[in-house]
Amino acid sequence: MSAESMPAPEIAVSKWFNTDAPLTLAGLRGRPVLIHAFQMLCPGCVAHGTPQAEKAHRLFEKTDLQVIGLHTVFEHHAAMTPVALEAFIHEYRLTMPIGVDDAGQEGPIPVTMARFAMRGTPTSILIGRDGNVLHHGFGQEEDMALGARIMQALIAAP
Amino acid sequence: MSAESMPAPEIAVSKWFNTDAPLTLAGLRGRPVLIHAFQMLCPGCVAHGTPQAEKAHRLFEKTDLQVIGLHTVFEHHAAMTPVALEAFIHEYRLTMPIGVDDAGQEGPIPVTMARFAMRGTPTSILIGRDGNVLHHGFGQEEDMALGARIMQALIAAP
Amino acid sequence: MSAESMPAPEIAVSKWFNTDAPLTLAGLRGRPVLIHAFQMLCPGCVAHGTPQAEKAHRLFEKTDLQVIGLHTVFEHHAAMTPVALEAFIHEYRLTMPIGVDDAGQEGPIPVTMARFAMRGTPTSILIGRDGNVLHHGFGQEEDMALGARIMQALIAAP
Amino acid sequence: MSAESMPAPEIAVSKWFNTDAPLTLAGLRGRPVLIHAFQMLCPGCVAHGTPQAEKAHRLFEKTDLQVIGLHTVFEHHAAMTPVALEAFIHEYRLTMPIGVDDAGQEGPIPVTMARFAMRGTPTSILIGRDGNVLHHGFGQEEDMALGARIMQALIAAP
Repeated sequence: MSAESMPAPEIAVSKWFNTDAPLTLAGLRGRPVLIHAFQMLCPGCVAHGTPQAEKAHRLFEKTDLQVIGLHTVFEHHAAMTPVALEAFIHEYRLTMPIGVDDAGQEGPIPVTMARFAMRGTPTSILIGRDGNVLHHGFGQEEDMALGARIMQALIAAP
Repeated sequence: MSAESMPAPEIAVSKWFNTDAPLTLAGLRGRPVLIHAFQMLCPGCVAHGTPQAEKAHRLFEKTDLQVIGLHTVFEHHAAMTPVALEAFIHEYRLTMPIGVDDAGQEGPIPVTMARFAMRGTPTSILIGRDGNVLHHGFGQEEDMALGARIMQALIAAP
Repeated sequence: MSAESMPAPEIAVSKWFNTDAPLTLAGLRGRPVLIHAFQMLCPGCVAHGTPQAEKAHRLFEKTDLQVIGLHTVFEHHAAMTPVALEAFIHEYRLTMPIGVDDAGQEGPIPVTMARFAMRGTPTSILIGRDGNVLHHGFGQEEDMALGARIMQALIAAP
Repeated sequence: MSAESMPAPEIAVSKWFNTDAPLTLAGLRGRPVLIHAFQMLCPGCVAHGTPQAEKAHRLFEKTDLQVIGLHTVFEHHAAMTPVALEAFIHEYRLTMPIGVDDAGQEGPIPVTMARFAMRGTPTSILIGRDGNVLHHGFGQEEDMALGARIMQALIAAP
């Protein structure tokens, strides 16, 4: 069994934006989920990754795909507070659901980031309808390849 | 029957680059085909459409997809000769197969461009495994949407 | 007398980054000064204006020009604190001197922003060797025009 | 005497576009001249250098600066003919005067290119009011630095 097919752990979110109800991977089982992990002060996220996730959110709006932005703060904690994130979401006109990764009790790495063993931001994780991780990428991703991966996950039988 | 599902007419090519043998849609039946129609002096092609088609050619290299660049010269015929196209292909390091659309006998519009009723350049046409036109777009296309469409065509049963 | 030649008011800064000593326009009299007013959560600043000011800082490093970044927070005050700005400066690797515009006592507009009657962010103000305002622009500025204006200010006799 | 201050040799042009009368450096003595040497099939010219020269032409339109595009064809001669260049100028909406560098009798390098010892395309040469070369650059140039250099040449006494 390859690393790609391991079951995704659950996300741990302390606060949500752009959604009326909290989201869980368990509740989304049967649908593909794209998690975009970012930090609002990460230049590569702001310039590329976050606009790309927002673009996917809008392009696949009428499909089963669920895009989730995850604010995985692992540095500059005093700067990237939920209040600051809210202003960031407003200024950059983000409409996808965005969750604050639970800071946890142990060190600077938040809970979901640790569970998925993310290496930094931006990280892009695609989860299939069956709850398994289909792709886990760190750094800049090509739009064309991402579009293809998402379609593949959408077409796959639940 | 919608316009999207009409059978693609055959391409008419007077000269090929980057391929040992001439390509035909009939010979490619069973595989998805992406046709990128361009002119080497069309700014929107040079800046966006042609690099995008080349990117698709490389990204889906190990799949069934066949990308075809088609030089559909409908203006400035004296400038965009096959000799000029060859230099263009060399300078822009294009590796996808590229055909010169047959100039034909009747007016400035080349044969394949007329058969497909293309509106100008760049034009992006995606043909399914069954030989039907899945998408016909004029102007700039999003990488993410193109990647998704190609994957959809690849997954569809022949 | 045109608006362009009015004497620049003094800047009011509550905290400095990237400089050992506080800067004042009075102390810089005799040298041209470029003030780049920005907010760390202003998308047009992050994508264009702030990198442009940093570029000017580096390009004209060996000349008399003094570039000053001015954090003119007039919205989202709870998000754009000095602590957050410090993280922003670190992440975006800014090396020009940056001052926090004094928040003042009256309403959301900080002191220097009000004194210069700035319309928003990004704002670019070029001050001549004689202390007069040579240019006051709001929004995106062309690199080529900015380079020309700076050189003109540098060549002018004190 | 540094290489920068050598007198510019005369340009040799076999055909002009976008100007009613032929231009010569002798005739332009007393004014700064920016020569942008390019080839219409040089990707770095099309994407960056040529739009930059056109931008300078428009930005400094009301000054003494004369911008000259020079088509210095040293490869793919059969592709980059004057007819092809005319179509290129039309499609890219270039309005600066553009001359075809005289092909000469000896080898592939055209006359002006050889006289200036240009290394390739794009090349940017700035000539002062006194007819001396102020700057000779090969490859991509920064807009901000170019704007500053042009202004410096404009302000210099004849």
